[in-house]
Amino acid sequence: MSSTFGKLFRVTTFGESHGGGVGAIIDGCPPRLKLSAADIQAQLDRRRPGQSALTTDRQEADRIEILSGVENGQTLGTPIAVMARNKDQRPGDYNDLADVPRPSHADYTYQEKYGIRSASGGGRASARETLARVAAGAIAEKYLAGENGVEIVAWVSQVGTDSAANIDSATVTRAEVDANPVRCPDATAAAVMTSAITAARDEKDSLGGVITCVCRNLPTGWGEPVFDKLEALLAHAMLSLPASKGFEIGSGFAGTQLRGSAHNDAFVAGPDGTLSTATNRSGGVQGGISNGEPVVFKVAFKPTATIGQDQQTADFKGKEQTLAAKGRHDPCVLPRAVPIVEAMAALVLVDLALLQKTRT
Amino acid sequence: MSSTFGKLFRVTTFGESHGGGVGAIIDGCPPRLKLSAADIQAQLDRRRPGQSALTTDRQEADRIEILSGVENGQTLGTPIAVMARNKDQRPGDYNDLADVPRPSHADYTYQEKYGIRSASGGGRASARETLARVAAGAIAEKYLAGENGVEIVAWVSQVGTDSAANIDSATVTRAEVDANPVRCPDATAAAVMTSAITAARDEKDSLGGVITCVCRNLPTGWGEPVFDKLEALLAHAMLSLPASKGFEIGSGFAGTQLRGSAHNDAFVAGPDGTLSTATNRSGGVQGGISNGEPVVFKVAFKPTATIGQDQQTADFKGKEQTLAAKGRHDPCVLPRAVPIVEAMAALVLVDLALLQKTRT
Amino acid sequence: MSSTFGKLFRVTTFGESHGGGVGAIIDGCPPRLKLSAADIQAQLDRRRPGQSALTTDRQEADRIEILSGVENGQTLGTPIAVMARNKDQRPGDYNDLADVPRPSHADYTYQEKYGIRSASGGGRASARETLARVAAGAIAEKYLAGENGVEIVAWVSQVGTDSAANIDSATVTRAEVDANPVRCPDATAAAVMTSAITAARDEKDSLGGVITCVCRNLPTGWGEPVFDKLEALLAHAMLSLPASKGFEIGSGFAGTQLRGSAHNDAFVAGPDGTLSTATNRSGGVQGGISNGEPVVFKVAFKPTATIGQDQQTADFKGKEQTLAAKGRHDPCVLPRAVPIVEAMAALVLVDLALLQKTRT
Amino acid sequence: MSSTFGKLFRVTTFGESHGGGVGAIIDGCPPRLKLSAADIQAQLDRRRPGQSALTTDRQEADRIEILSGVENGQTLGTPIAVMARNKDQRPGDYNDLADVPRPSHADYTYQEKYGIRSASGGGRASARETLARVAAGAIAEKYLAGENGVEIVAWVSQVGTDSAANIDSATVTRAEVDANPVRCPDATAAAVMTSAITAARDEKDSLGGVITCVCRNLPTGWGEPVFDKLEALLAHAMLSLPASKGFEIGSGFAGTQLRGSAHNDAFVAGPDGTLSTATNRSGGVQGGISNGEPVVFKVAFKPTATIGQDQQTADFKGKEQTLAAKGRHDPCVLPRAVPIVEAMAALVLVDLALLQKTRT
Repeated sequence: MSSTFGKLFRVTTFGESHGGGVGAIIDGCPPRLKLSAADIQAQLDRRRPGQSALTTDRQEADRIEILSGVENGQTLGTPIAVMARNKDQRPGDYNDLADVPRPSHADYTYQEKYGIRSASGGGRASARETLARVAAGAIAEKYLAGENGVEIVAWVSQVGTDSAANIDSATVTRAEVDANPVRCPDATAAAVMTSAITAARDEKDSLGGVITCVCRNLPTGWGEPVFDKLEALLAHAMLSLPASKGFEIGSGFAGTQLRGSAHNDAFVAGPDGTLSTATNRSGGVQGGISNGEPVVFKVAFKPTATIGQDQQTADFKGKEQTLAAKGRHDPCVLPRAVPIVEAMAALVLVDLALLQKTRT
Repeated sequence: MSSTFGKLFRVTTFGESHGGGVGAIIDGCPPRLKLSAADIQAQLDRRRPGQSALTTDRQEADRIEILSGVENGQTLGTPIAVMARNKDQRPGDYNDLADVPRPSHADYTYQEKYGIRSASGGGRASARETLARVAAGAIAEKYLAGENGVEIVAWVSQVGTDSAANIDSATVTRAEVDANPVRCPDATAAAVMTSAITAARDEKDSLGGVITCVCRNLPTGWGEPVFDKLEALLAHAMLSLPASKGFEIGSGFAGTQLRGSAHNDAFVAGPDGTLSTATNRSGGVQGGISNGEPVVFKVAFKPTATIGQDQQTADFKGKEQTLAAKGRHDPCVLPRAVPIVEAMAALVLVDLALLQKTRT
Repeated sequence: MSSTFGKLFRVTTFGESHGGGVGAIIDGCPPRLKLSAADIQAQLDRRRPGQSALTTDRQEADRIEILSGVENGQTLGTPIAVMARNKDQRPGDYNDLADVPRPSHADYTYQEKYGIRSASGGGRASARETLARVAAGAIAEKYLAGENGVEIVAWVSQVGTDSAANIDSATVTRAEVDANPVRCPDATAAAVMTSAITAARDEKDSLGGVITCVCRNLPTGWGEPVFDKLEALLAHAMLSLPASKGFEIGSGFAGTQLRGSAHNDAFVAGPDGTLSTATNRSGGVQGGISNGEPVVFKVAFKPTATIGQDQQTADFKGKEQTLAAKGRHDPCVLPRAVPIVEAMAALVLVDLALLQKTRT
Repeated sequence: MSSTFGKLFRVTTFGESHGGGVGAIIDGCPPRLKLSAADIQAQLDRRRPGQSALTTDRQEADRIEILSGVENGQTLGTPIAVMARNKDQRPGDYNDLADVPRPSHADYTYQEKYGIRSASGGGRASARETLARVAAGAIAEKYLAGENGVEIVAWVSQVGTDSAANIDSATVTRAEVDANPVRCPDATAAAVMTSAITAARDEKDSLGGVITCVCRNLPTGWGEPVFDKLEALLAHAMLSLPASKGFEIGSGFAGTQLRGSAHNDAFVAGPDGTLSTATNRSGGVQGGISNGEPVVFKVAFKPTATIGQDQQTADFKGKEQTLAAKGRHDPCVLPRAVPIVEAMAALVLVDLALLQKTRT
């Protein structure tokens, strides 16, 4: 509901972009999981602004504190509260925004919805909100890795009009993804993407793109028909991310052009008689339930709405205005969105993993 | 959770494809809404198999019965139970399926998840399950139309490799959509699509495609940040549909190729000072909240998995098998999926409409 | 939420006292549980009106039908829908009630809440609604008995001012409870209670009383701190029953008069070192979690509100009226409430049992 | 679910008695509510340990911080996070407890449930957890008072074997309740209770008792049939409190001894034709829905489990032990539980108030 995600591994987040801090309560995490702040910090550092020349130079330490639920390096089974204080605030950057809702941003709709909104920055619509997701996702990942050997790897597969060559989703690693700041494991494409992002930034403009994500080593049986199919929850999770505009799993939109005879994934038996599929156009899911193949999906992100260029628009009173944002914003959110996509995938999977335990 | 959708207008469905019947309990519907079985039947008839030469010739009357919650043509505010009995069963058609899981269908994953599965047909993974969604959606639509004048219109915009010309989402009507059996309001494209579907059927094959849907006359303010953004709930709803593989809102995947300066929707003021946007690449949603523009989204459907052609696959024991489905199945689910997409959209919207009442 | 109970084993009920029927969808029941309509019918027959001279002579067959989720005598893991048609309706009995809200009944509050109400009978406030609870509870009991050997036994421990002697909660059985129509396993007290109920009925009056319930063989560890403690969920379940006015667990209200030194349950070790408690004033729960001792609680039921005597009251328009109910109602709901209390206890326990599986 | 209470006004709490801090996220609070930390602090100070000679001398400042969701003294509609740091820790006090589970406390059951537990103190079972409830309840109360003029007043009506004379629930105020440290508005009874508590403390023993609570000025129509009746949610809320053992509403257990003709609340019309009831044995609720009369209920609290006296018990290994708690604990939790009961009542009411908005 609103600020809570998940049914058994429930994450409830709080925090405006500018205020006391952001954080989350994770309720339902199994007990006796080895966990430290360092486990969480690693993913937060990948999400952090200011980590490379491609991102905003806004510096946020994003130092995470565990307030409860962990003792002597182990989870207690009780709610885990995590928090990062807000630090680097320049409310002055947002003064112009009080009267002029930024195009394609959430200023206007928050005001309409609540009859009030955070005086500076994007409030809950700010990318800073995703810090809490990444923290919670890191805990989920720790559990999934230890319990099921699940591996989740996301990467930038498209920036603007530039796409990566096919990446082998069966083997790609986070180290390969992090080999360059754009987080595209195709080095040639990464260089092109880097140039494109730099160019857009220099022109006070922004770029969108696509992130691909693979989840490996899922057992069969995760996912809940009818309404909580694995792909439905992934789509929910991904479209809840700021700036996301689309989701597809397996063959996705391209697969709609195939005939059934060409699209179906035939079953084949391994030496031990275990079934797998010869192809994976299903994206690891059949009938909403994992089939043991890698789960592969893509998420579309629009170009960053806040740009430094002049934009002709109107203020809240209906008067025409020229707006040029002064805040420090990413010219392309994709590189920093990689750990966020992984986090949300982990939150979906951990919930289904726990739920499946109630079937046995 | 699984078989329940919605938080305030909660729909819980039941029923296998082959069994006593399918139905739903709708809890949380506001009282004093004028409602009759006929209101529901109209949309059910659009979903019904056997309605045209393009669909399966399996005949299902799908006669809906209202069991509770309505008296003298008005809702009581108490749970509305609806049910349609199952009738046209030919379990013999499914005998071959007991040992051979159909490729890209849910036989294998249900068996893995539950350690048991419905002996015939697709159980809950069957398209028949969607009957209950359509019934519930019809009630939601009735409320939304009366309360807010909301209009929801979906249509087939692509079948296989054939696409419709641009449809004007501001004006397209259900009557235009229903003008041909393929439910594409572009008559020229519809004729091409019809040929393609007929050809696929004659070759015992199947086709996929894309449905576009518009929701008009939404007020501003519907949608719940952070996790229950309007587009997140729509994506959840659409990816919960059988055979769906993708979702995009507004500019979607194509929009990822634009720069921010070209993608942003500038605000413009009307004569009364009310803001709207000059373009609608946002698809009617900003920051997860409706902005008053039409909500426009697309859903990708894979080609029907069950085909009459021989398929090489393996049975549950790992032995190679040739499978040719004998059941009667749609060569293309798109035309019948139109009212289902509308129903799920209505369920998302009605829930957010009720939720927004708690903010005032 | 309203008509849904439980988080993992979720029961959603529907049905007015007078309408098409009453029933429930049970979602989340584990697969491969042996189940037949007869398993459910047994408890329904204990709840049925007209089963003895002590209850209303209104005859309701309450024949249950399983519509989905069960095949070849086993649950599929999919939603189990159950329904009983309504049959014996005499709306004429309720004509007087259209204008005069019955004292201490729900006519007035339903009208105020919804601006409309069922034209005859108590709508959802009728005792008939509990049929669906009993059906769902019977399924829960079947699971708990098979999985954990849990035994749930409730009995009438007080009627009006007459109380049973102490019943041994460690050994009392349903057979002993059902040995007399009043369902009090103390035969002497039962005879007194029977006379009291007969006298009240003859005087067109009604009696209240107390039901005691024990749940045996629970493992340790069921119950969720902080808000979903075992006793909190039991209290919720019991106070959701029509006519219930109070709940207490273990030492209850009487225990408030003891000092801690006299109230505490000391731990003692068995031969195998397993801890149990020397006394059970805690009622089987500590910190909201089962401790392995029998869970013992009591539920207070007020005297039936609908009585045949003349009552001075006012109609909806504020005019003074004399009301004498003509419907057929139980002079004392206690005997028929016994299986209902058991059912609700089972629903609480099964949910916690499934939830605890996610901790291991 | 576990650490979350409420459906629309959702409170999720965190924090062990000994750790980084305790707090809550309140999601779903309506926007534009005037709110400051001082509004919350007032009730926290009533809950605080060390406030009088009757409570533990453990000093906890319980200084609340609002981390998000409030700006310029108004709520934003976004999650409100509140936190109080833990300060006064003496883990040494709990060293003895590591091996010996305290009788009638949660040490044993937490260990059994989670296979691990907080090394010191009661973890989530500690009374300190209730701080977060009181903070959230204060916000709920602020809303209810402003929106509906709702007044919630609780008081100690029984300590051990000593009861207060009848308090007029129609008029009693918090000022009258707070006129003495025992929080009993009957001064004579308060003096007796004070002596009893002092005596128990001097004998290293403890006392239980009963709190009565009234909620005034509720409109008609709050409460959700079937499972979420107003009294069911109140019972859930109250039995979720540490040390509570019973709940009753209106006539409660005593009312079970009356006949229907004596128990029913007849309707009477006011000068404007509005109905009220001549008596209020229903406790302000009929059919689970508020009827406009004051909601009156009682909560039973057992004597504090942790006492300084020697107790014969067994340790986790099954060895007999003599235990004498060294921690500083209240000899009677009742006076400090008064604001906690009020807080939980407010959380129940605010949720139902918001829910009722979706009916109109």
